[in-house]
Amino acid sequence: MPRLVMKFGGTSVADLGRIENAARRVAAEVEAGYDVAVVVSAMSGKTNELVGWVRETAPLYDAREYDAVVSSGENVTAGLMALTLQSMGVDARSWQGWQVPVRTTSAHGAARIEDIETANLDAKFADGVKVAVIAGFQGLSPENRITTLGRGGSDTTAVAFAAALGAERCDIYTDVDGIYTTDPRVADKARKLERIAYEEMLELASLGAKVLQTRSVELAMRYKVRLQVLSSFEDLPGTLVCDEEELMENNVVSGVAYQRDEAKMTLLAVADRPGIAAAIFGPLAEAGVNVDMIVQNISEGGHTDMTFSCPVDEVTKATRALETAQANGEINYAKLDADTNVAKVSIVGIGMRSHAGVAQKMFKALADEGVNIKVITTSEIKTSVLVDRKYLELAVQALHDAFELEKA
Amino acid sequence: MPRLVMKFGGTSVADLGRIENAARRVAAEVEAGYDVAVVVSAMSGKTNELVGWVRETAPLYDAREYDAVVSSGENVTAGLMALTLQSMGVDARSWQGWQVPVRTTSAHGAARIEDIETANLDAKFADGVKVAVIAGFQGLSPENRITTLGRGGSDTTAVAFAAALGAERCDIYTDVDGIYTTDPRVADKARKLERIAYEEMLELASLGAKVLQTRSVELAMRYKVRLQVLSSFEDLPGTLVCDEEELMENNVVSGVAYQRDEAKMTLLAVADRPGIAAAIFGPLAEAGVNVDMIVQNISEGGHTDMTFSCPVDEVTKATRALETAQANGEINYAKLDADTNVAKVSIVGIGMRSHAGVAQKMFKALADEGVNIKVITTSEIKTSVLVDRKYLELAVQALHDAFELEKA
Repeated sequence: MPRLVMKFGGTSVADLGRIENAARRVAAEVEAGYDVAVVVSAMSGKTNELVGWVRETAPLYDAREYDAVVSSGENVTAGLMALTLQSMGVDARSWQGWQVPVRTTSAHGAARIEDIETANLDAKFADGVKVAVIAGFQGLSPENRITTLGRGGSDTTAVAFAAALGAERCDIYTDVDGIYTTDPRVADKARKLERIAYEEMLELASLGAKVLQTRSVELAMRYKVRLQVLSSFEDLPGTLVCDEEELMENNVVSGVAYQRDEAKMTLLAVADRPGIAAAIFGPLAEAGVNVDMIVQNISEGGHTDMTFSCPVDEVTKATRALETAQANGEINYAKLDADTNVAKVSIVGIGMRSHAGVAQKMFKALADEGVNIKVITTSEIKTSVLVDRKYLELAVQALHDAFELEKA
Repeated sequence: MPRLVMKFGGTSVADLGRIENAARRVAAEVEAGYDVAVVVSAMSGKTNELVGWVRETAPLYDAREYDAVVSSGENVTAGLMALTLQSMGVDARSWQGWQVPVRTTSAHGAARIEDIETANLDAKFADGVKVAVIAGFQGLSPENRITTLGRGGSDTTAVAFAAALGAERCDIYTDVDGIYTTDPRVADKARKLERIAYEEMLELASLGAKVLQTRSVELAMRYKVRLQVLSSFEDLPGTLVCDEEELMENNVVSGVAYQRDEAKMTLLAVADRPGIAAAIFGPLAEAGVNVDMIVQNISEGGHTDMTFSCPVDEVTKATRALETAQANGEINYAKLDADTNVAKVSIVGIGMRSHAGVAQKMFKALADEGVNIKVITTSEIKTSVLVDRKYLELAVQALHDAFELEKA
């Protein structure tokens, strides 16, 4: 039998009615001839309740006990999903992480899947079980203790099972119906993509993060697992995240991503010497500042200007770290400027690799609207700019139009 | 190190504050020099929530999935208890049934413990772990699936661990502070017993059922586990349930038990022939009627009267079963009488075995108060009578006085 993995997140199994709705989708795939592994999250709200109890009990908690407590939410959903399928006449049973087993590292709270032993599941499928319901987000450490996989863990579980079981596809059911060319709230011409390459999905994280965790996309890319994102609540085609070879034709630009609350920080007249970048970004990394774009201007008279971007709410932290480094003599700059009114806009597309002039087209589209570009960075399949925050929506719409993303 | 098992029921771990209160008691025993196994129930209300979901999902549920779902309640408490102890500086960790493992039969929902492998716990205690927190009520089937033990399962878990670990005592913390000579709501002279024999505790089920499940007392008796019942909420000495050899002197009568809502049913003029009892009680058993006392009067002219008692709310069921058997020609009686206004009163005491005249003293005490006895049955350590329900309190008080149970 061909195999399929289906994953339902917290809002898709929020109550018994929604579990039933999800089970109906599973039953339809069984009817279509698949053996199905269903990966479920905790009913929405349950994980937060459990985490709240742990934190209230012990602010500095033992991550092993945290995992033992928090993993119970997925176990409940897995059992209820199996029962629901059974009552629809589908031969189903549940597996908790340790029962499969899903072997992970010992990094409690953020464990990594090392291996999924499928012998047990294979045997049950061979016996005629049609659906294996898997409690997501969890596994078993070498010390025989329960681990959880951290943020996005259920998506990762689903992709790992799809790889281990040789599934035809991994369908991620969620509360959005796919990946869009941009945020429909910003540009009403935003169009749902039929297909998108793994690499593009990774670069579009800001559009897709609510939908697919980066980690699960990376895993899917490594094992060439075809991922489909689709809605639990509507019968609409979703978006297939796949290898670029599966794309009919590479999009030059697939989507426009943005990050609203960015800050641009500039160190003016920094002494330009080998190791200066390490001297600046070392203290920032230690302070936990998420530095994104970095631009170093040309050197003049032994000095240079160094500009970087970070989230607005990390500006205070960044300023303190840099001032301390200055006071300690680790770095030497004339002035530190922070512009907290910028936003980042990016165009992403596999086709940029083979098409010249894409960045130029981006800059022109922005210039035509009078949007001033403050910083530019480029990678193989993405070009990002910082602009004044007030131009964010205008910039996104202009780029969406310029690359005609509303057309399939 | 000497070992102790401490068990906390649902109301004793109902919320984080109560878990902390329970943990403080555990820490005190560690301080006193014990290695402790703590057996916990689900936070009160949680099991009902989980059971409700299962029943709503599938009225005819798969008991294996029921167990997978319902056992999660204890897992949560176990983790939270371990965290609470850790934050008090006590070296503690949690174990779920499958981790120990607690090996059980495959009778899902009502599994029996077959074996507890303590090697893992022994090693951890040897390593310096002071407290093993055990999720009660659950185990692992030979098929590697989670089982639950059914009603009173957490008490049973505690007693089984006490036996397996060679614990000095098994302390059952609950919302009452011990076993009383009778129900204090019925007789205000009721006195808390310091000690009581296993056999007496079993016969006093009606007084103790809210406190200790019969099953756990039977297990304690078999393995000679000293059971102590005490309050989670007050610092009071509890009641020790132990071997009669540990009693200073056997009580002639230890307590007065009662059951309020009984019915007395009489089949008049039943054809008296071999197998007639089986012909009557077979259909009742099949109908699920809990027959308690049975009395057969002397035979006269080939006929006899057969009287039995059962709970009032099973009278309809019993009547239907008997009338069907009559219609089918399986039994033949002249008339079926049901008296639904009776109650059962019992005196229980190990010392009755060696003291003559105890039953006689009971009958006289009741007669002195004008209480008419309707049915009598006796066993080695218990004498029970049915009386009109309106005399219940009077009868209990009269017997409590007659045997001077208010005196230690």
